[in-house]
Amino acid sequence: MASAGHYVGLDVGGTTMKAAVVNDEGLPLSTPVVMATEPERGQDAGLETMCETIRRAVAAAKLTMTEITAIGVATPGLMDIKAGLILDPPNLKPWKNVPVRDHIQKAFGLPTVYQNDANAATYGEYWVGAGREARSMVMFTLGTGVGGGIILDDFIVEGEHSHGGELGHMRIESPAHGRLCGCGSRGCLEAYGSASSVVRRTREELATYRGPSKLKEYYTANDDVLTAKVIFQLASEGDALAMEIVDDTAYYLALGACALIATVDPEMIVFGGGMAVAESFRAKIHEYTTRFGLPHPVKKVKIAFAKLGSDAGFIGTGGAARLALRQGKV
Amino acid sequence: MASAGHYVGLDVGGTTMKAAVVNDEGLPLSTPVVMATEPERGQDAGLETMCETIRRAVAAAKLTMTEITAIGVATPGLMDIKAGLILDPPNLKPWKNVPVRDHIQKAFGLPTVYQNDANAATYGEYWVGAGREARSMVMFTLGTGVGGGIILDDFIVEGEHSHGGELGHMRIESPAHGRLCGCGSRGCLEAYGSASSVVRRTREELATYRGPSKLKEYYTANDDVLTAKVIFQLASEGDALAMEIVDDTAYYLALGACALIATVDPEMIVFGGGMAVAESFRAKIHEYTTRFGLPHPVKKVKIAFAKLGSDAGFIGTGGAARLALRQGKV
Repeated sequence: MASAGHYVGLDVGGTTMKAAVVNDEGLPLSTPVVMATEPERGQDAGLETMCETIRRAVAAAKLTMTEITAIGVATPGLMDIKAGLILDPPNLKPWKNVPVRDHIQKAFGLPTVYQNDANAATYGEYWVGAGREARSMVMFTLGTGVGGGIILDDFIVEGEHSHGGELGHMRIESPAHGRLCGCGSRGCLEAYGSASSVVRRTREELATYRGPSKLKEYYTANDDVLTAKVIFQLASEGDALAMEIVDDTAYYLALGACALIATVDPEMIVFGGGMAVAESFRAKIHEYTTRFGLPHPVKKVKIAFAKLGSDAGFIGTGGAARLALRQGKV
Repeated sequence: MASAGHYVGLDVGGTTMKAAVVNDEGLPLSTPVVMATEPERGQDAGLETMCETIRRAVAAAKLTMTEITAIGVATPGLMDIKAGLILDPPNLKPWKNVPVRDHIQKAFGLPTVYQNDANAATYGEYWVGAGREARSMVMFTLGTGVGGGIILDDFIVEGEHSHGGELGHMRIESPAHGRLCGCGSRGCLEAYGSASSVVRRTREELATYRGPSKLKEYYTANDDVLTAKVIFQLASEGDALAMEIVDDTAYYLALGACALIATVDPEMIVFGGGMAVAESFRAKIHEYTTRFGLPHPVKKVKIAFAKLGSDAGFIGTGGAARLALRQGKV
């Protein structure tokens, strides 16, 4: 179909950047092109790598630039989404005030849309992933930290200061009782629900745990390589301590879900990242959400796991470009 | 101007309902008409009272029905906003499944828009009150409970299950440590920041407080009429215990503000209700928000008090009707 759209989605991370062209159905036209970000080479080199990644993605899709409808670029915060600026995010040091949107727009002469990477990944899941049928969706991404995004009726909640959907820094415990978060505050969801925090909480438990435990045996032999994946695996094999850690994690994430229910009351809440795999874990999050959330909406809210994996980033970034174009925002 | 719009805003509460016609600038064309709701007389009587209140409001504005552009109706939850239904809210007993929007639409043959009362009041402040200049705004209304609403770029966050902006039931303390809320859960903002909770926390403090205190003297003489207003008044006169209660209240409300900053990151956060008066209280909320919120957006977020008082309800309800019409939703 000659009139069909082609959107480049470029997802820039601290280590690599990935891009692919997606069509109007959210299907990537090739496997993503991956290039090293190497922020230490400076922001001019970074901008050039972005352009090169875009060019290669278009070539990989067997298209020419004239066949591209729009370009989406997503980066990790801090950023000014409206101004199209990367400010000074910790994982892109020493970049500072990089006019990424304008640069790419000028380089290719195409409508270019800039978005936060977590918002873009959430939009990807909303558009063609777990939330495909949902009108509104919140996503929590569980990794080293806890990322997030909120989409309400095709409206991406960017926030007035580009901090919309910073769900890892929503508190689930007051500063008086809360665990210390990497951000310096206490009680943030990230200090409880990230993969790193699962490991950290496990180490703490192991320090005093007296029962028999495969987890303890594993840890004694491999304390330097303890991961959330191992802990979840041992829980699935019935290890009591690992099960307790996983159960606590479900409870903490459910408190996060409950907070979103009381604020934006979405149709669906999605969890993504390496820990969001086992149906039993999903069911536990759902159970705790039902127990601790507002009685009326918790009966109806859907709790699901993400479907697109790390592809959500570039797919959602291309999708965000398409959405902005359709909404007349570019 | 013949083409100017006239919107009836009808704000239905458990005790009274209020209506007035507002124009395109959000100005009421008369003082509001107030009628008793008397839910105990049944829902058919209630619907008739609503229609009568609307008729009287139009008459009070010296207009005829043919000069009305649209009608807005707001009620307290539980409700189904999309379906235009009052479900079974506790303060409108014994009403159940009342098709309020369709009834009023048929009665007058005019576009009719249904909204949650707290969302409508928030929209009122956003449209022509404290948030007039803001692109996005969250409001907390402090009364017997804590109500709330979220408006993002002219989008009223209704929620998928009509529970958007139930900010009183967002937790600021985990269930493990939290105060019991009227809803049966623990840790809800409402259990800390409502006027009733201010009184309850004061009574608890007084039980063990040993210092000299005007508040203690007042309470000993008037324990049955202790109100948040008195407590705030005594704080402004320098009573140490009252000041501590007010300070704690500012801290709790700031934690609520911080949660909204990490989720929707609004341009402005507004507090309304009888306690939201003194500039020193506003400044304290702002100070705690700066201390406990996300570093980047807290530097820019505006913290303000509501300006329209109880008029926000009917003004915002009329405004919500106008907004829906302009957005092509009715």
